[in-house]
Amino acid sequence: MPELRKDPITGRWVIISTDRARRPMDFVRERTPPPPARICPFCPGMEKKTPPEILAYRESGEPNTPGWQLRVVANKFPALRVEGDLNKQGEGLYDRMNGVGAHEVIIETPEHSASMSEMGEKQVADVFFAFRDRMIDLRRDARLRYVIAFKNHGAAAGATLEHPHSQLIALPVVPKRVQEELEGSRRYYSFRERCIYCDILQQELQTRERIVFESDHFVVIAPFASRFPFETWIVPRRHNAHFEASEPAVIQNLGWVVRTVLRKIDKALEKPPYNFMLHTAPLQEGPLDHYHWHLEVIPKLTKVAGFEWGTGFYINPTPPEEAAEFLRDMGLP
Amino acid sequence: MPELRKDPITGRWVIISTDRARRPMDFVRERTPPPPARICPFCPGMEKKTPPEILAYRESGEPNTPGWQLRVVANKFPALRVEGDLNKQGEGLYDRMNGVGAHEVIIETPEHSASMSEMGEKQVADVFFAFRDRMIDLRRDARLRYVIAFKNHGAAAGATLEHPHSQLIALPVVPKRVQEELEGSRRYYSFRERCIYCDILQQELQTRERIVFESDHFVVIAPFASRFPFETWIVPRRHNAHFEASEPAVIQNLGWVVRTVLRKIDKALEKPPYNFMLHTAPLQEGPLDHYHWHLEVIPKLTKVAGFEWGTGFYINPTPPEEAAEFLRDMGLP
Repeated sequence: MPELRKDPITGRWVIISTDRARRPMDFVRERTPPPPARICPFCPGMEKKTPPEILAYRESGEPNTPGWQLRVVANKFPALRVEGDLNKQGEGLYDRMNGVGAHEVIIETPEHSASMSEMGEKQVADVFFAFRDRMIDLRRDARLRYVIAFKNHGAAAGATLEHPHSQLIALPVVPKRVQEELEGSRRYYSFRERCIYCDILQQELQTRERIVFESDHFVVIAPFASRFPFETWIVPRRHNAHFEASEPAVIQNLGWVVRTVLRKIDKALEKPPYNFMLHTAPLQEGPLDHYHWHLEVIPKLTKVAGFEWGTGFYINPTPPEEAAEFLRDMGLP
Repeated sequence: MPELRKDPITGRWVIISTDRARRPMDFVRERTPPPPARICPFCPGMEKKTPPEILAYRESGEPNTPGWQLRVVANKFPALRVEGDLNKQGEGLYDRMNGVGAHEVIIETPEHSASMSEMGEKQVADVFFAFRDRMIDLRRDARLRYVIAFKNHGAAAGATLEHPHSQLIALPVVPKRVQEELEGSRRYYSFRERCIYCDILQQELQTRERIVFESDHFVVIAPFASRFPFETWIVPRRHNAHFEASEPAVIQNLGWVVRTVLRKIDKALEKPPYNFMLHTAPLQEGPLDHYHWHLEVIPKLTKVAGFEWGTGFYINPTPPEEAAEFLRDMGLP
C-alpha cells in the first residue's frame, strides 16, 4: 500500500510508493530512454490493455470497445489506491496514513498523434467536462479532500506515453501549494472583503500590460510574479471557487481558450513541452467567497536547479509583460 | 536592474530579470546544446575571463593569477546586483523592489575535470569555509537578509559549466521555503520548547532505519518524508541555527561527510546529476533555539512534472528506509 507522509517541519505531504519501490538500477536504466512501444495501449482497439473505463464519451459501441471520443481509466501504475481506510498513525514525531485516493488517466482523443493544440475546440472542452464529471463523482467519497487535474505534454515535462492524455489524482489531504493559495486569499478577504483573484483581474484589465487575450468567460494573463518564462494563467471572469460547479457554457468556452493558449505557445516557442494544472477549492468545501479556481499553464523552457529547490524562490529570465506581448502578437487562431 | 516581485496570493518572491530578458527564440535555440567551449574561464591562467576575485585560498601568486586552490568571483551574469537601494514599491495590489543582492561563483578547484566526490577532503571542506567566509562578509550589508549557498552538478541539475563550481545568492528577503522551515520549527518549539531537528536526530538515532552514516559532528539521514528518491540530509549533531557560526572542526568534518555522501551516491546511482543546498538561519538573526542548519542533497533522478508543480505534493518512488539501506551498503570510502 502506498503511504502518505507528512514532513514534521513544513507540513508538506509526500506519497511514498512502498510496493513498487524503485531501486538504484531502475534509475540508471531510465537514463537511456526505451525504444518507443509499437503498441499504444491508449489507441482504439487496444481497450483491453488498460483497466476498464470509469467514464467514456462515445458515439457508438459498448464500453471498452472502439467508438469513443474520450476515455477515463484507472492509472495502471497508480500512485494511490482506492481501497481501504486512511488508518492515520503517529510514529514519534512523524505522521503517516495509507495512500488512499484515486489516480486516473483521461485519454483525450482516439487519435494517437494529435496534440491538444491541434484538437478541435469541442474535444479540448470534453477533457475539462471529464475533469468535472470525475470530480463530481469523486467528491461523494468523504475520505477524499482534493482532486488535482493536470497534463504533462512532452517527455521533458514528464509525459511517459505519446498518446494525448491528462491525469487526475484524488487525495485525502489538501496539498501545500493549494493550502497556501487558500490561506493567502483568505487573509486578503478578511482584510478587504473581496476576492484577491477578482481584484487581480480588475487591475490587470485596467493596466492591460499582462493581458494575453480575453474571451466571453475568461481572462488570460501572464501573472505579475511569474515563476517561469511564459507562465500563463487562465482565470474565469466570474467568481467561482469550484471548477466542478462551472456552467456548461463556461467549460465549453474553456476548450477554445486552452486551445488558443496552447497554439500561441506552440507558435511563439516552437512546440515546447508544457504542463497545466487546475487549481480549485477542496472537494468537501461549500462555495468560498475568497477563492477562485484557475488553470496554470507552464511551458517547460528552463531547468529548475538547486537554487529553486532550496528556496522556493524562482529566477525568471522573461518579464511577464514581455511574455504577454509576445503571446498577444501571435494573434488568435 | 533586475526586479524582485511578490506573488500577492502566496507571498512567494521571484526574481524577474529585466535587462537580459530572454525572448522566445533564445529558448528554442537552447534546446540544442551548444558545442563545449574550448576555453574554460574557471581554469588557472584564465583568471582575466572572470570578474575579479572576491576571495581566494591560494598558496602563491598575486590575486587574479594562478596559484589558487579556490576562488570566489562575482557571477558574470548575475541574477541580482549589489548596487542601489531596494526602493520598495507598491503598484495597486502588487509589491516589488529592486533586485539588490549578490550572486557569486565558488570555483572549487583548479582542476577542470575533478568532480566534488573525487576531490580531497580538505578541498571539499574549503568550499564550505568559503561559504562561511562570504556569509560573514555579506551579513555586514544590512540590506541583505539571506544567503543561499548551493551546487548544481551535471547539466540535468542545471549546471552550465563543467569546471567544478558552486554558487551563492544573497537576497534582501527570506525565501519562502526557508520561511516555512523557520515557522514550522518555531511552532514546534513554542509547543515543546525543543528544537524539532534535534528531536528528529534523536528519534532517527533510536530507530536507525533512515540513518545513512554518522561522523563526529554529523548525522546523515534519508528524511522520513523525502520528496525525491535518495534525498539525503546532513544534519549537525550539535544545535546551531547559523551555518556560518560553525566551529572550524565542524566545517572540516563536513568536508569528509559531503564527499562521503557524494561517493555513496555516485556508486549507488552511477554518478547522477545532483543538487545540494545549505539551509541556514537568516543573516541578520541572532542565535535561534528553534532552527538548526543542515545541508540537503538531492540526486536528480526523476523529472518533476505538472502534479508536483501544481500542488507542492511529491510522489517519491523509493522509500527513504530503502534508500538509506542502499547508501549504507555502499560502505565508507
